[in-house]
Amino acid sequence: MATGSVLKVGVVGGTGYTGVELLRLLVNHPQAELEVITSRGDAGTAVADMFPSLRGRTDLVFSEPDVARLAQCDVVFFATPHNVAMRMMPELMEAGVRVVDLSADFRLRDHELWSEWYGEPHACPELLAEAVYGLPEVNREKMRDARLVACAGCYPTSIQLGYLPLLENGWIKPDQLIANSASGASGAGKGAKVAMLLAEAGESYKAYGASGHRHLPEIEQGLADIAGGPVKATFVPHLIPMIRGIHSTLYGQLVEGAPSLEEVQAAYEARYANEPFVDVMPLGSHPETRFVKGANTCRIALHQPRGENVIVVLSVIDNLVKGASGQAVQAMNIMFGLNEDAGLSVVPLAP
Amino acid sequence: MATGSVLKVGVVGGTGYTGVELLRLLVNHPQAELEVITSRGDAGTAVADMFPSLRGRTDLVFSEPDVARLAQCDVVFFATPHNVAMRMMPELMEAGVRVVDLSADFRLRDHELWSEWYGEPHACPELLAEAVYGLPEVNREKMRDARLVACAGCYPTSIQLGYLPLLENGWIKPDQLIANSASGASGAGKGAKVAMLLAEAGESYKAYGASGHRHLPEIEQGLADIAGGPVKATFVPHLIPMIRGIHSTLYGQLVEGAPSLEEVQAAYEARYANEPFVDVMPLGSHPETRFVKGANTCRIALHQPRGENVIVVLSVIDNLVKGASGQAVQAMNIMFGLNEDAGLSVVPLAP
Amino acid sequence: MATGSVLKVGVVGGTGYTGVELLRLLVNHPQAELEVITSRGDAGTAVADMFPSLRGRTDLVFSEPDVARLAQCDVVFFATPHNVAMRMMPELMEAGVRVVDLSADFRLRDHELWSEWYGEPHACPELLAEAVYGLPEVNREKMRDARLVACAGCYPTSIQLGYLPLLENGWIKPDQLIANSASGASGAGKGAKVAMLLAEAGESYKAYGASGHRHLPEIEQGLADIAGGPVKATFVPHLIPMIRGIHSTLYGQLVEGAPSLEEVQAAYEARYANEPFVDVMPLGSHPETRFVKGANTCRIALHQPRGENVIVVLSVIDNLVKGASGQAVQAMNIMFGLNEDAGLSVVPLAP
Amino acid sequence: MATGSVLKVGVVGGTGYTGVELLRLLVNHPQAELEVITSRGDAGTAVADMFPSLRGRTDLVFSEPDVARLAQCDVVFFATPHNVAMRMMPELMEAGVRVVDLSADFRLRDHELWSEWYGEPHACPELLAEAVYGLPEVNREKMRDARLVACAGCYPTSIQLGYLPLLENGWIKPDQLIANSASGASGAGKGAKVAMLLAEAGESYKAYGASGHRHLPEIEQGLADIAGGPVKATFVPHLIPMIRGIHSTLYGQLVEGAPSLEEVQAAYEARYANEPFVDVMPLGSHPETRFVKGANTCRIALHQPRGENVIVVLSVIDNLVKGASGQAVQAMNIMFGLNEDAGLSVVPLAP
Repeated sequence: MATGSVLKVGVVGGTGYTGVELLRLLVNHPQAELEVITSRGDAGTAVADMFPSLRGRTDLVFSEPDVARLAQCDVVFFATPHNVAMRMMPELMEAGVRVVDLSADFRLRDHELWSEWYGEPHACPELLAEAVYGLPEVNREKMRDARLVACAGCYPTSIQLGYLPLLENGWIKPDQLIANSASGASGAGKGAKVAMLLAEAGESYKAYGASGHRHLPEIEQGLADIAGGPVKATFVPHLIPMIRGIHSTLYGQLVEGAPSLEEVQAAYEARYANEPFVDVMPLGSHPETRFVKGANTCRIALHQPRGENVIVVLSVIDNLVKGASGQAVQAMNIMFGLNEDAGLSVVPLAP
Repeated sequence: MATGSVLKVGVVGGTGYTGVELLRLLVNHPQAELEVITSRGDAGTAVADMFPSLRGRTDLVFSEPDVARLAQCDVVFFATPHNVAMRMMPELMEAGVRVVDLSADFRLRDHELWSEWYGEPHACPELLAEAVYGLPEVNREKMRDARLVACAGCYPTSIQLGYLPLLENGWIKPDQLIANSASGASGAGKGAKVAMLLAEAGESYKAYGASGHRHLPEIEQGLADIAGGPVKATFVPHLIPMIRGIHSTLYGQLVEGAPSLEEVQAAYEARYANEPFVDVMPLGSHPETRFVKGANTCRIALHQPRGENVIVVLSVIDNLVKGASGQAVQAMNIMFGLNEDAGLSVVPLAP
Repeated sequence: MATGSVLKVGVVGGTGYTGVELLRLLVNHPQAELEVITSRGDAGTAVADMFPSLRGRTDLVFSEPDVARLAQCDVVFFATPHNVAMRMMPELMEAGVRVVDLSADFRLRDHELWSEWYGEPHACPELLAEAVYGLPEVNREKMRDARLVACAGCYPTSIQLGYLPLLENGWIKPDQLIANSASGASGAGKGAKVAMLLAEAGESYKAYGASGHRHLPEIEQGLADIAGGPVKATFVPHLIPMIRGIHSTLYGQLVEGAPSLEEVQAAYEARYANEPFVDVMPLGSHPETRFVKGANTCRIALHQPRGENVIVVLSVIDNLVKGASGQAVQAMNIMFGLNEDAGLSVVPLAP
Repeated sequence: MATGSVLKVGVVGGTGYTGVELLRLLVNHPQAELEVITSRGDAGTAVADMFPSLRGRTDLVFSEPDVARLAQCDVVFFATPHNVAMRMMPELMEAGVRVVDLSADFRLRDHELWSEWYGEPHACPELLAEAVYGLPEVNREKMRDARLVACAGCYPTSIQLGYLPLLENGWIKPDQLIANSASGASGAGKGAKVAMLLAEAGESYKAYGASGHRHLPEIEQGLADIAGGPVKATFVPHLIPMIRGIHSTLYGQLVEGAPSLEEVQAAYEARYANEPFVDVMPLGSHPETRFVKGANTCRIALHQPRGENVIVVLSVIDNLVKGASGQAVQAMNIMFGLNEDAGLSVVPLAP
């Protein structure tokens, strides 16, 4: 992309948390100009009326979804629930728009697996083969020329980045992975659900989906790609009484002949040395979700309890940034040849 | 104990969270009368001045620890950090007082193991053999006549009650246990630590002690007793941005020939059928820590993701009640032949 | 009421927060037996399935509202939104049931004022004159024989108890009252509203209804009764990012000749000396909402900044207990001649 | 200042919350380079080790306070408790360094008043006359050439900006001001105090300093400057169970002949039209503290309950940004002729 030029950006479904988070990042992006933001339910409402945090930062007004108008953008983000992007995708592809989809519609390559977990047929299986899974640390090269990037999900990002060097090197048993994750309440979205009221979800902690969660097939597909062979993972997500952040505690059984913890640490540091958004903390660290609040960073630390055969990886992200909208902006930057951290220099809020 | 008579109770170290929690329970106990409560640092302060929640409920004043005065009690609770109870214990035993120790001093039978984790010699190894580990669901009979009960710790209680029927029946591999636990901030006590400030610990989530935590030897000792043989556990505790509650997510590898999930569920229900403070929830449930807030109950639920060989047990307690002071009152009730739920009928606060 | 006999109790609308709070208190009430609990939307659901905190404490099942069944109770509580109790009241009165209404239906004596604030005609104006406003510290005697008690609201309780001795003695200007109050999120009820999601209401603080709030006419009616003449109050409520508790900061302009702060303090202590649920803290105290969490107590403290003509009263209650369900049980105890604190001995949860 | 040149910046006392907040803003400031950051207690510690949120963003190491080294900076910020800046100030002034003091040392012009509230003599009264009170919306012109700017405090900023147009126009009685404010826990600083533990300050709400708070003389001095005559204010601060944000609810008695609410609103909008960091929201709005989380903005809204003579102003800021470190960066920008919003374009975090 020519230096100094500015991308025209559209956002479909901007009224949810990933939508407003995209706006937070894009209004400070030096090479992106938000042109259109749609909402079926709130068309006509000024963005800053719905999100007063954006007063003075944008004059945009939500409009009805309109493919013709979106088609004039260079890039369109889908910040929608599943089952929306896949219905509009063929027209947008035909119009030559490049798309970054934050939803789950194009993450699984196997449309039958998608149907199994989402309970309905996939509306656009013909584009699944072309969609590039948007985890830059794994797929950066493929993303450069992609027409359609399906951003990695929040839990899957924290888990894949945490396990990656161990699996790439074959140092843990791929069929005994246990990913114990926990997320803040914003991960449940902005829908009005009793279970997510402050008076219900505050001052409490629980697991959910312990018998099976929709993110599992994405996790296993991604980990299998990394491992170069089949994996089996147990994944139990939990709800933390706070707003932002995901913490994954990942357990692996070291194989015979696995290197020492110090060597594993060195391998993590080497693998991520050039990754702008992955931080391997010193051995013995305990990353806290607040260390990445508002930022596009994943921080990782390693432990080997009692020096024995279980290795524990701690991995934190902000679910709305590296787990969603920041990852999406990073994807856009890669697709259009911009600096990968353009618009993503936000420092975490502390305290 | 004769009907209608009332126990004279002493509390050593009543200014911390387990101390005030003991008071909350004891002021409503029909057969216990708090006679003396000590504090080295706050002697002379009225209890209700330090804890205004107790205004109008007690006229007690903190006094200097004084064995002679404690010796006049029927039962003395230690709500102290480790390394206090074991120094006063010989004199109290000699005086014929029965003791419920909430600290870690007498939980491990092996004093060398204690020294290894607590970094100093054990001051009273001669009483370790006599001390009864205070987990009523395992040791009720031994507790009845005990002079010294060492109450089970908070994390260990949630973990042992969660794994118990699986281990008793030999249905999971005892050397591959993974206990992923999380606690509210009151578990860290009332000491003034920067890391526990609201502005630090609020709105964030982290693991701690991931390379090894002091509760591990207690957990493994207790689980080995239950299993009837050696166990190996990986235990990673986490800090939840809330005040009360512990949630343990327990992973087990089912052995060949293990029964179906429904049969395991039935075994859990049978094992705990007569336990007044353990609630096995229906299959598929997700116990939330708020379901036990303020109450002496442990609630448990089972999951078997995809019907495969990993079983997941979810176990919640209030760390200050079933994980500390409620368990201690339950111990007293057992030791003195009272109704086991005397003083423990508090209903969880909801919302 | 005869010693040892037990009241048959019905609850209409038990699925909200005041409903479950009534249950928490009533299951431990020595002289009340919950016979029927209704819910139009959840009839057939076991109470303990909706509120797992009550597992093991009640076998009740929500049933359809049925006047015939309610008519067999000694007392019926309405834990409903406004506009429900007033529709069922004539039939219940005719059946001879005594009623404690937690809703706003019978709090205002002036049905036109009610209509003005609630936007619809009052359905049962003929019973307004008979209804007794349920603030025991003001109306205890009238409540003893009342058929229908309209419990004081949450904000109004904290404000009336705070101002009461000052207004009874004519020591502050009745037309310049400023009540700045703040409530936890449970005050907004259990309805699924986006604004009350943890991700919206957490980690934030706001005023609401600053131009006029429905509780204002109740506040002014009650304060006028206390003052024995008209009052004018400015009332601004705020939302605190927590679950339980109301804190009112009350400003009064002392009249010429008002006594010293110490004399005012003495008057407060005297006025409330025999009140089981009002605690006047020492001068200079700052009551915290947690000092009453889960308990039926109102704690009050006085300040006179710089010794000048403004007096500041701080008043805290638990909005679900003294602000709703505890007050209702207290009303029942008064109406039926029971000990006023029967079922209300819960000690506040601390921490 | 010449375009493109970069200021050399020093920070004294960078280990507290205002310190790390300065760092968050300065690492993204296009025309400032942090050269030195001092800490008496943590000299030798890498900044990113103390604040992992800054890993990868700064290589600075805390150093001992050293005037010679600070003297080489263009500007030095004091992010210290009171009683530090006033001891180092004379030397720095002599060295020709310009200073932005975030502490309370130079806010009050009257050193006896300072002594009265801070309990010790002022160490540097000779510089008080020269110090410019750093509230840009009032003192911008004086700040341009100031050697020493004493940044307005957190509560005082929210209160002064809220009352400003009303007092400038003489529309409210200046001797009957009531400022009811509330702050998140970060306002209490990073010191290890029991009262600020999550388990103490969480899930609770309280007033503090209700009989008199150190911010009151600053508030009254500032409001008197604005009003052009003496004022009398009652100020009661409160602690909110959250991390960031201040909310002030300001009550004023309208004078006879005061204009309509719509005219007052228009006056507010006009007064702040060119202020980059003050946002007057539409009539009837309720600004929430989260609308400014992380940003240097003050948002204000007006209410006139029942159209009578009390006006209510709601005013929110982030206590660590517009209430401290953002205001300090704004001051630096003004003092050195930079764009006033350089480094301050952060969008509030939502949700």
